[in-house]
Amino acid sequence: MTVLEKINSPKDLKKQTIESLNVLAEEMRKALIRKVDTTGGHMGPNLGMVEVTIALHYVFNTPSDKIIFDVSHQCYPHKMLTGRREAFTDPDKYGTVSGYTNPEESPYDLFKVGHTATSISLACGVAKARDLQGGHENVVAIIGDGSLSGGEAYEGLNNAAVLGSNMIIVVNDNEMSIAENHGGLYSNLRLLRETSGEAECNFFKAIGFNYHYIADGHNLEDLISVFQSVKDTQHPTVVHIHTIKGKGLSVAEADKERFHWIVSGEVESAQSNQQAEKSEDYSTITRTFLEKKCQEDKRVVVISPATPGATGLTKDFRKKAGVHYTDVGIAEEHAVAFSSGIASAGGKPVMMVLSSFIQRTYDQLSQDLALNKNPATILVFWGGLSGADATHLGSFDIPMISNIPNIVYLAPTTKEEYIAMLNWSMNQTEHPVVIRVPSGEVVSSGTPDETDYGVLNRFKVVEKGQDVAILGLGNFFELARTVHRKLADDFNIHSTLINPIYMTGLDETLLNELKSNHKLVVTLEDGQLDGGFGEKVARFYGCSDVKVLTFGGRKEFTDRMPESVLFERNHLIPEQIVLDINSVLKKGY
Amino acid sequence: MTVLEKINSPKDLKKQTIESLNVLAEEMRKALIRKVDTTGGHMGPNLGMVEVTIALHYVFNTPSDKIIFDVSHQCYPHKMLTGRREAFTDPDKYGTVSGYTNPEESPYDLFKVGHTATSISLACGVAKARDLQGGHENVVAIIGDGSLSGGEAYEGLNNAAVLGSNMIIVVNDNEMSIAENHGGLYSNLRLLRETSGEAECNFFKAIGFNYHYIADGHNLEDLISVFQSVKDTQHPTVVHIHTIKGKGLSVAEADKERFHWIVSGEVESAQSNQQAEKSEDYSTITRTFLEKKCQEDKRVVVISPATPGATGLTKDFRKKAGVHYTDVGIAEEHAVAFSSGIASAGGKPVMMVLSSFIQRTYDQLSQDLALNKNPATILVFWGGLSGADATHLGSFDIPMISNIPNIVYLAPTTKEEYIAMLNWSMNQTEHPVVIRVPSGEVVSSGTPDETDYGVLNRFKVVEKGQDVAILGLGNFFELARTVHRKLADDFNIHSTLINPIYMTGLDETLLNELKSNHKLVVTLEDGQLDGGFGEKVARFYGCSDVKVLTFGGRKEFTDRMPESVLFERNHLIPEQIVLDINSVLKKGY
Repeated sequence: MTVLEKINSPKDLKKQTIESLNVLAEEMRKALIRKVDTTGGHMGPNLGMVEVTIALHYVFNTPSDKIIFDVSHQCYPHKMLTGRREAFTDPDKYGTVSGYTNPEESPYDLFKVGHTATSISLACGVAKARDLQGGHENVVAIIGDGSLSGGEAYEGLNNAAVLGSNMIIVVNDNEMSIAENHGGLYSNLRLLRETSGEAECNFFKAIGFNYHYIADGHNLEDLISVFQSVKDTQHPTVVHIHTIKGKGLSVAEADKERFHWIVSGEVESAQSNQQAEKSEDYSTITRTFLEKKCQEDKRVVVISPATPGATGLTKDFRKKAGVHYTDVGIAEEHAVAFSSGIASAGGKPVMMVLSSFIQRTYDQLSQDLALNKNPATILVFWGGLSGADATHLGSFDIPMISNIPNIVYLAPTTKEEYIAMLNWSMNQTEHPVVIRVPSGEVVSSGTPDETDYGVLNRFKVVEKGQDVAILGLGNFFELARTVHRKLADDFNIHSTLINPIYMTGLDETLLNELKSNHKLVVTLEDGQLDGGFGEKVARFYGCSDVKVLTFGGRKEFTDRMPESVLFERNHLIPEQIVLDINSVLKKGY
Repeated sequence: MTVLEKINSPKDLKKQTIESLNVLAEEMRKALIRKVDTTGGHMGPNLGMVEVTIALHYVFNTPSDKIIFDVSHQCYPHKMLTGRREAFTDPDKYGTVSGYTNPEESPYDLFKVGHTATSISLACGVAKARDLQGGHENVVAIIGDGSLSGGEAYEGLNNAAVLGSNMIIVVNDNEMSIAENHGGLYSNLRLLRETSGEAECNFFKAIGFNYHYIADGHNLEDLISVFQSVKDTQHPTVVHIHTIKGKGLSVAEADKERFHWIVSGEVESAQSNQQAEKSEDYSTITRTFLEKKCQEDKRVVVISPATPGATGLTKDFRKKAGVHYTDVGIAEEHAVAFSSGIASAGGKPVMMVLSSFIQRTYDQLSQDLALNKNPATILVFWGGLSGADATHLGSFDIPMISNIPNIVYLAPTTKEEYIAMLNWSMNQTEHPVVIRVPSGEVVSSGTPDETDYGVLNRFKVVEKGQDVAILGLGNFFELARTVHRKLADDFNIHSTLINPIYMTGLDETLLNELKSNHKLVVTLEDGQLDGGFGEKVARFYGCSDVKVLTFGGRKEFTDRMPESVLFERNHLIPEQIVLDINSVLKKGY
């Protein structure tokens, strides 16, 4: 029997010697490597946190004491020690836990989290509720050095420092964000590492924390000793721990960015020195376009809030781009304001961000950018309904962005449209422009797009028909085309097919014209219906005789729901759509 | 001729002696006091920045050198020195400038701003654009100590520190936010003040800044000397200046919070020791309710992100509430996450925030709160169409909040409903609840409301009629009632009058029932139509024979537009609404 097999809950840990805890760490690491390389997932962050997690559960009494993870990229060892071991050791049970903390999964998990920089703020709340109710349990917030660049983390630090009661913040400093770190804070973390935490100029002390430094975050004795010393402290305390991202897996230690999150089989690929060949997708198209722009125009700046890899900005791109590339760290709010500032002063910013993370910038989009009408370009990746984890859905960007005044939000349907929009956006000086980068396979029309996108809100009529008009937005234009064909094939309905392009305004002239020979307008959008595009069309036709049928996603947080299920329940299968259309036509007229 | 009359642009300043600059400061201060006490506006912040602003314009060469204000509460002296003097000296011209910086007003203003914590991030962008284009002008960001608690400010500091070129951040430390400061940072600012900037443990130095301290921010020679020494620096630099909020007006120095922003006549009231009697409004109702709750239930915490005064939380309330009140500083993101954390651990958080500032928390509402379904209560004040400045509009909260899954967003129409909702929200454990506190005069039904708001999305039918149903949401319910009466009086139409209450879900049963004897459903909402409530109703009826007419605001940033104009252009006058309804009825049927 392995040590790991003996650990059914953290209390089993407390019986172990240091020697067997060290054996346990090795067993956990091996299981993690095997599991993550099989299913894909976060590799480096978890390998780095094995000993820290063992020591935390050895010293503190969870779930009475509370451990709150940030982003929860690093929670797998915690799951292994809190009754969910088999999800990491038994291949048949690999799918039984999610990649993030989840209170529905375990009482040891306090929050569903997948966005960064939240742990300290959430922990402050947990501590405040404890204090009001007269509790005495420890509240431990875990945060990575990368997440410390996020404003919400700082707001949390600032308030944790004045709570006046127990609060322990574990800073897991692996000298990395997803990619390398950027920002002034990191010079202080380096200074603290170099001085073994002794430097007088200390970011955490300045804010009011007691401070402890652990130079080797893989030494269980050191970890346990410091955690024991801070347990039950009544003063806000930071434990700054130096760890190695990817610890114990040489390819992951060597290429920390590549092994932050991996797909299945990556370890073997790396060990045999292979890098997956990447076929053309919208990331590579974007990168190729921007490489050229950076060379041609000294005013261009490509901006990433710490997610260059996810948006196609390879190390090679970043190196070549030089001053034309800025990674601002995990600081999406700053990224938008920074872009607005650049655009206001004659620069050509292109910010690249995932749909789920642009959510962090509503007010910056509104106040810093849109109100000022600065001509920045923002590219939103991974927008659309998907089988993603509940914390990384791409279904909310249309409702969030398209209802902000002054922004032009565009939905290209082909590579050529996308490039034409990029060119237009970077050359114009009137509008803040957001482009929803298509997801899925590249669609090419084969001919350059000459549209002047500065003539706002002009939809493209792709096929002229009658009775039914289908507006297929962005990613769903090809679905609309399928429906258009199927209506003809199955019901002899020759519908009008429209590519609306603009999510921030209607082509009222066209929509009015449709009234003359259309009974039904159908909208298809790859995102949540509530607050989205279809509702605007429904409002437009509210007082007319034209009926409107809207297709898109329900208002909900789905969690790793297979796309086939998701599409079927939302009536997004072509057969369903065609039947729904036919049913309205039959009923209404 | 006064000195001030000689200053038509900053270059006129440069000819003056220190003596005449000091005279100028006094002249400016007198004009400011007279003007602001006449029109209302920001008093304390501007009085504190007179000398700093003179010194900045004396040393730097604006508009070539760039000065970027944070929140721009403190920009009046800047306006006086940059060609807009008469807006402060000539009562006939008091209305010619806005209370915030505005590039449309002057080339010396770089951004429209009214939300906090943005200046450093925007300045980083301006500096980056300068560097790419080979410019050499100075970029100066101004920020108050209060704003430094905002995450966006920190994200900006973190990146300003690594820009590698000229960037000067002026920290105006008046030891106050709007109310008093809260957070760990402020202990460091105090330490720096107490050591004349000499303490080794320095927040700004930790992040990588060169650092200068000016103990007397009203001493022009000191200010000029330090600004001259940092001008053209190629290293990121913080100039930390201690100023006195309200400097030169004794009542404002004595009560800094009261004189942060004042209404017309406040100086005289304060000098004669009067405090305006406050009649009952929704702020006082809220305060009275929460006072009782704080006494009755130890789990209650009232949370303000640095705007207690604007939401009715008087000094007296805060003192009495003790541990049941937390001001988190200007840190709205943290406030939402903190509330979620408290609710997750059995506390009863009630966060109070202005509509315009809840915009800063989209992702925290979505991820930290709604995804976790924690039963926090958030009260949104000042929601609705208004004559406010473009930076403080309350027209976007319905589109922003109501499209986030899992949130229950309520629109009470009377005092009794509001109190019943507060009680329900604080007693339930299932939902994150947001309540849009009514604006305008208190409406009372006279009888306690016994509704169980846990039965979600059940609209209240107030008057049964036929043909037309009017859904009057929240603030606009009384408008709906007027329209209801007028339809009867003018056109003999006996309409159905409905109070929808819920902004996050439709009463589908009721809406389906209406189909049987209603031709038209009218929605009235006090906010932007795009993404709002009416569009959901229009989508619901999209395929039916019921027509939908939606009333609300256009998608736009209005700027101090008189409400009469705003309402008329949006067809929100009862006469207009009734005519529109009648016109649809006549046309359609």
